[in-house]
Amino acid sequence: MTLKLHNFFRSSTSTRLRAALNLKGLDYDYVAYVLRDGEPRTPAYLARNPQGLVPTLELDDGTNLTQSLAIIEWLEETHPTPALLPADPSGRARVRALAYMIACEIHPLNNLRVLFRLRDQFGADEGAQKDWFTHWVSTTFDALEDALANSPDTGTFCHGDTPGLADVCLYAQVWNNRRFDIALDPWPTISRIFAALDALPEFRNAAPPNQPDAA
Amino acid sequence: MTLKLHNFFRSSTSTRLRAALNLKGLDYDYVAYVLRDGEPRTPAYLARNPQGLVPTLELDDGTNLTQSLAIIEWLEETHPTPALLPADPSGRARVRALAYMIACEIHPLNNLRVLFRLRDQFGADEGAQKDWFTHWVSTTFDALEDALANSPDTGTFCHGDTPGLADVCLYAQVWNNRRFDIALDPWPTISRIFAALDALPEFRNAAPPNQPDAA
Repeated sequence: MTLKLHNFFRSSTSTRLRAALNLKGLDYDYVAYVLRDGEPRTPAYLARNPQGLVPTLELDDGTNLTQSLAIIEWLEETHPTPALLPADPSGRARVRALAYMIACEIHPLNNLRVLFRLRDQFGADEGAQKDWFTHWVSTTFDALEDALANSPDTGTFCHGDTPGLADVCLYAQVWNNRRFDIALDPWPTISRIFAALDALPEFRNAAPPNQPDAA
Repeated sequence: MTLKLHNFFRSSTSTRLRAALNLKGLDYDYVAYVLRDGEPRTPAYLARNPQGLVPTLELDDGTNLTQSLAIIEWLEETHPTPALLPADPSGRARVRALAYMIACEIHPLNNLRVLFRLRDQFGADEGAQKDWFTHWVSTTFDALEDALANSPDTGTFCHGDTPGLADVCLYAQVWNNRRFDIALDPWPTISRIFAALDALPEFRNAAPPNQPDAA
């Protein structure tokens, strides 16, 4: 099977998916898009992904899978080993909830098109954008730190000692935070887990600076 | 099993979960919170849900499940019939992608705490909030309409003729749109699916005006 990953080095959702593919041991062809230039809004790309967002995972048969979390769940179902979700339903619910805290409460508010909209609608300059970005990271990272630090289910990684769905989201978000130089000091558990993930080649090789289109 | 649903009638994520519980045929005790009064930020509620968000689903054994999509996946795994996801991985990927288009690209940008933040940081009045809200609904509904109208997998509902995960998200979002009187005319397929869902008691009974805490 040849997988083709349509993505962008700095995109947080792309980073998540690269880490998940690496954890599954799956090779993929890397196709880069320049978000600032609006490349994903071309008719050719919109035919793959009607939202004009990255990433899209193109399969052998021409199927285009969209939405990073949906693609990762597909990977989990079609390539179950190694698992990115625990076996028990309550563990799976915990890991998905941790992942969605990031994927539904931080990332959607802080991606490039939202920052552009703040600039265009409210005249938000770099400083105002940073305040906005930092506010949403802090709000959810405070709760995430609490959820991780106070649960016996937290291990080396978000859930036990095997990296999974919550970890790929956490790892990508911490990289994204660097756009505005957000230090991890207020969140020691998140910081510790990030360091443990960053020591793994599957994550390190998914990091933005290590992609072919990194500036 | 006694389920206790901590929620708010107008919350879109609560509406999603109520519809999913109704589709599964599961009864629940309804516990209402007033979001505007900051009730979910009390220490007692934060102990259930460190984000201070609704909904939370409390189980018999005291476990508190958070994040609506994680709870719905848990329901699907613990109460598989009737299914809210199709059986085949590619169908599941499609349904999840449609759901996440709404859950990750519209709702997070348009909920109450974001509108409050726009007011507080940028002085956004009701009109500016409506422009913002409408922009994100339109951007994703245009793509969702395209994805639904151009796929042979779309049926009476988002995927075939059985309502599921994408439908509970679509139904809740359309109700949420009414906060700013957004008409569905530009999106005929979304409009048709919403009408079909609204004719089902499982959805109708989950709608905001039909909850005990509705004004």
